[in-house]
Amino acid sequence: MKNTSKIYDIVEKIREQKPVVHHLTNWVTIYDCANIVKVLGGSPIMAHAPEEIFEITSIASSLVLNIGTLTVDFVESTKIAAKTANLKKIPVVLDVCGAGASRLRNQKVSELIEYASINIIKGNGSEIASIAGENVFTKGVDSTETGLNLIKVAEKLAVEKQCIVAITGKQDIVSDGKRTFMVKNGHELLSHIVGTGCMATSVIGTFAAVEKDLVVAATGALALFGIAAEVAAESTNLPSSFKTKLFDVLYSIDRQTIEKRLNLEKIE
Amino acid sequence: MKNTSKIYDIVEKIREQKPVVHHLTNWVTIYDCANIVKVLGGSPIMAHAPEEIFEITSIASSLVLNIGTLTVDFVESTKIAAKTANLKKIPVVLDVCGAGASRLRNQKVSELIEYASINIIKGNGSEIASIAGENVFTKGVDSTETGLNLIKVAEKLAVEKQCIVAITGKQDIVSDGKRTFMVKNGHELLSHIVGTGCMATSVIGTFAAVEKDLVVAATGALALFGIAAEVAAESTNLPSSFKTKLFDVLYSIDRQTIEKRLNLEKIE
Amino acid sequence: MKNTSKIYDIVEKIREQKPVVHHLTNWVTIYDCANIVKVLGGSPIMAHAPEEIFEITSIASSLVLNIGTLTVDFVESTKIAAKTANLKKIPVVLDVCGAGASRLRNQKVSELIEYASINIIKGNGSEIASIAGENVFTKGVDSTETGLNLIKVAEKLAVEKQCIVAITGKQDIVSDGKRTFMVKNGHELLSHIVGTGCMATSVIGTFAAVEKDLVVAATGALALFGIAAEVAAESTNLPSSFKTKLFDVLYSIDRQTIEKRLNLEKIE
Repeated sequence: MKNTSKIYDIVEKIREQKPVVHHLTNWVTIYDCANIVKVLGGSPIMAHAPEEIFEITSIASSLVLNIGTLTVDFVESTKIAAKTANLKKIPVVLDVCGAGASRLRNQKVSELIEYASINIIKGNGSEIASIAGENVFTKGVDSTETGLNLIKVAEKLAVEKQCIVAITGKQDIVSDGKRTFMVKNGHELLSHIVGTGCMATSVIGTFAAVEKDLVVAATGALALFGIAAEVAAESTNLPSSFKTKLFDVLYSIDRQTIEKRLNLEKIE
Repeated sequence: MKNTSKIYDIVEKIREQKPVVHHLTNWVTIYDCANIVKVLGGSPIMAHAPEEIFEITSIASSLVLNIGTLTVDFVESTKIAAKTANLKKIPVVLDVCGAGASRLRNQKVSELIEYASINIIKGNGSEIASIAGENVFTKGVDSTETGLNLIKVAEKLAVEKQCIVAITGKQDIVSDGKRTFMVKNGHELLSHIVGTGCMATSVIGTFAAVEKDLVVAATGALALFGIAAEVAAESTNLPSSFKTKLFDVLYSIDRQTIEKRLNLEKIE
Repeated sequence: MKNTSKIYDIVEKIREQKPVVHHLTNWVTIYDCANIVKVLGGSPIMAHAPEEIFEITSIASSLVLNIGTLTVDFVESTKIAAKTANLKKIPVVLDVCGAGASRLRNQKVSELIEYASINIIKGNGSEIASIAGENVFTKGVDSTETGLNLIKVAEKLAVEKQCIVAITGKQDIVSDGKRTFMVKNGHELLSHIVGTGCMATSVIGTFAAVEKDLVVAATGALALFGIAAEVAAESTNLPSSFKTKLFDVLYSIDRQTIEKRLNLEKIE
């Protein structure tokens, strides 16, 4: 990203255009995913019935898929949605939540990626490593320590799947195989509440709804999310109060706060 | 409503009788729908397995249906529940969440209304307009601008379907075709968090559980919800803090607050 | 429990070991169930697809089942999970949420208990009484007044099913048929928000993941939950603020607070 103002430009666009962001997500964090789109200024719609997917995705500006509580039927619906998004030329963001924890998850992610174009694949270190075929042991949805060079994993997977890869963790990595960014914003409290990974994906989806350069969209979204966490953590060190604050900060964030705090590195 | 004390009388009845309010609702706002019934003093029960619907609806004092994340199976369960409610003579409130966004939604709402008596149909402007057969374009679940005379739409639909129609928006409209009220309470922050439409429906369902005049129940519920929003917005202008406050206000609201703030108009 | 320090020892173990707690739970409180495990220091994973249950339960240290919004398919998944847990020798906690409200619930609980070993059965008074075959009328998920001697009900059911029985209410009862404890910690505000019963079960599941004596685990978990409620209620008397505080207290609770407040009675 050339200048730090870009992120706030995207936020302003979201607030003006109120893009519809269609989600097929998990039943744990579905409310937070919807609400984070809303406080950003977007318009979330959550719908998974196969009979209506084509119409719902068609009115959306981006599509967010999340396999956190997948079933076989649910994944079939995500396929229809992804194919529709491809047809309508809107971006598809896939959170490979829990990948590596079961063969079902990895197999269904493979099927989905083969069936339709996914523009941004997002997960934590162990999830992305698992999708990339790296040999890591995962301990459920919270696994983050992999011992791998995640920058290389992201770049390789991005080239292989011809998409953008976003890995969240202490430092977030975004790569399309050519351009790679590391986001150093964030706060440790994010790891003490459920769903911050899913929420980050929904922020990416909302950015992607109005910003065509999807590397910029994904990087900017993760930076904004991290910055908001930093600001929220200034008024509390307790997780549940922090979560309330996080949403409030995302709703009210201004250009100066972003410019002052942005901590982004381009990996050469 | 003849006097403003009526609303608090209903609140007191809820707190005393703790009516069971059976919900078949969407997976996004299901917790908030249950919790808003609870803070009002009611007893929410959420159950959708067809094998138990008859028994669950039978112990309830009202039934709330919401098609926000409908599937074909889910709608079949709502039909059993609605029929049971008719048999047991308890009121049925239907939130036509997302109507107009897909043919599935409109078709299933039609089926449901033909299959069983719905006492109160509730939606935002574009959802109700869509159910009423008006030609409006909808942009998902957040659509509200229709350019229509919503009072006329409500009155006509109420007569046609022999039910009460409640339209929420900047100003809420409640009509049974003969009596029409406009609720002017409310606050803009309600539009910045997900699920306030669903929550309003659950408040209507809780009021309908103890108040036989369903026009009074629906009008009073929407007025109370709007008043609580106004009070909550006095201590914060941020959406996530506002939501916490909204529930706290509904739990603790007293007669004076309602009487002082009620802003209700009878449409002649 | 011999000394009050035991509870904090368990909390410390959870914070160190970060045990994976696999849940198959209801769609109403699924987020809160996950989040309460997280603030305690554990790692929640919610997954219900039959194709992956064996693998998911296999990476967990305990299993929490909750039939709050059961369907027939869902119960089949709980059976696979429970059987897997038995095989892997990890404890199974079952919240018989809403038992007594429909024949489906009681029948499915029976099937589950026959099919696999359940280590801890948990419910409120009327739910447990219903499972125990006592003749009580239930008014949905909030029923608590049964007029029964719940200590005797718990002890008898524990012997009959060869498990631990935990009954929550104003005072909680935990019994394995030989040892019986009564937890007198808690606060009335817990009854004004949805899901505190489910959350208590998830706390039990998290304790059971690191403490082998399951009577100690269940008793300690309920005491901790009650103590946290007391502390939370010191800073607010409103339910929604209380809930935020409850999670924050569980995250930050220390040994002194537990030791000072613990109000536990061994029933002789």
